[in-house]
Amino acid sequence: MEGAILVSAPSSPPSSTSIPSLILSQDELKKIAAYKAVEYVESGMVLGLGTGSTAKHAVDRIGDLLRQGKLHNIVGIPTSKRTHEQAVSVGIPLADLDSHPVIDLAIDGADEVDPNLNLVKGRGGSLLREKMVEGACRKFVVIVDESKLVKHLGGSGLAMPVEVVPFCWKFTAKRLQSLFEEAGCVAKLRASNGEAYVTDNGNYIVDLYFEEDIGDLKAASDAMLQLAGVVEHGMFLDMATTVIVAGELGITVKNK
Amino acid sequence: MEGAILVSAPSSPPSSTSIPSLILSQDELKKIAAYKAVEYVESGMVLGLGTGSTAKHAVDRIGDLLRQGKLHNIVGIPTSKRTHEQAVSVGIPLADLDSHPVIDLAIDGADEVDPNLNLVKGRGGSLLREKMVEGACRKFVVIVDESKLVKHLGGSGLAMPVEVVPFCWKFTAKRLQSLFEEAGCVAKLRASNGEAYVTDNGNYIVDLYFEEDIGDLKAASDAMLQLAGVVEHGMFLDMATTVIVAGELGITVKNK
Repeated sequence: MEGAILVSAPSSPPSSTSIPSLILSQDELKKIAAYKAVEYVESGMVLGLGTGSTAKHAVDRIGDLLRQGKLHNIVGIPTSKRTHEQAVSVGIPLADLDSHPVIDLAIDGADEVDPNLNLVKGRGGSLLREKMVEGACRKFVVIVDESKLVKHLGGSGLAMPVEVVPFCWKFTAKRLQSLFEEAGCVAKLRASNGEAYVTDNGNYIVDLYFEEDIGDLKAASDAMLQLAGVVEHGMFLDMATTVIVAGELGITVKNK
Repeated sequence: MEGAILVSAPSSPPSSTSIPSLILSQDELKKIAAYKAVEYVESGMVLGLGTGSTAKHAVDRIGDLLRQGKLHNIVGIPTSKRTHEQAVSVGIPLADLDSHPVIDLAIDGADEVDPNLNLVKGRGGSLLREKMVEGACRKFVVIVDESKLVKHLGGSGLAMPVEVVPFCWKFTAKRLQSLFEEAGCVAKLRASNGEAYVTDNGNYIVDLYFEEDIGDLKAASDAMLQLAGVVEHGMFLDMATTVIVAGELGITVKNK
């Protein structure tokens, strides 16, 4: 099921230029997708709150609607320490999976979306908590700008993140690279300020880059999880129920 | 392939009693199995060094043989911080998987051994590092006393450990328990001095107890690994190449 909803043109032309322009920045597209997703939120819901530049707009919007009294009785389950802080700052009451093991709806961004609504997530580093929260949802709405659509996962040429234990991470990185040798895989430790990037769970991230399609995603997922040093990977297979794509020509809503 | 090698009787009867006795303590049986396993060690080998009360005897024995000049050029890869310390104290030169990604031989204990040489390990809490090291071995020799033999994994009624991220561990424990509901599974957080036990990797251990056979082990393994909060579990499937069992009547060597 797929539908296109046109973005309405601005009511007045920009004042700083004589040429009217409808070109929207990537951040504006993210915001449009995020606001659309928040239309799915109803009072009384337990909400999974995503992490990243797109999800941030959704969290802000939920805070706005709570303050305006248009939403009430919302409980948020954040997917990272960063989102926890943001949600507190905009006044969303928070809980965790231990007290709320079933979530009505989660809203989050993604780094890649394939035609079957499989995702790559976690370039922001929060893939494990995101997967725990979003795996516990009745509905999972993904919000992206159109640059995130790919023919196959890994197809953007950007990172597919894998969270690994720090113990002998080089060994684990080599094993990951060997798993996908035929797809021309290169594995790199994610760095931050010259040191290994450390996740909220105290682990490292190994980013995988592929030259070719990796083929059977379920098999790839199982093979990665079977490596003892791998904690979790950034492929979110068969989890998204809706993907909202914001592009220059409007919003597209894809449902599973 | 299976063979029984009788333990030789002590050369002289115990001096403190007039009734000669061949009854060996559990620790003596562990030591007998460990010493037998060390016969597989050759000079120049890279060795995986296990963790626990049985493996400890093997590490001590390797240290003895190095000091006596009967072994040389050994490099040990310890499976825990504890084994690291022990190996240093008995003079075994150490390295890690990053520098030695292929290991000639690993020797370690196990908590359960089934008829197909599948294992439960990790009651000592080191399952993840053990699985990483022992998964990189050409030969993996398991040493147990006969009390560890079971008809099916989980059959001892003792813990099957699962390493989980601390984040929302209760949620993960509930999911694990639900996975094995039909086997009458009960999941309990491992405690130490009234607090959650913390692994070498900064994670928690959820111990699973089963009333019934869990059935297909490969399916059980995949299902656990697919839970986002699970880092690793204590089932070691199709990994042991040799199991040495020490019992009252002698040593049994089982080969895969």
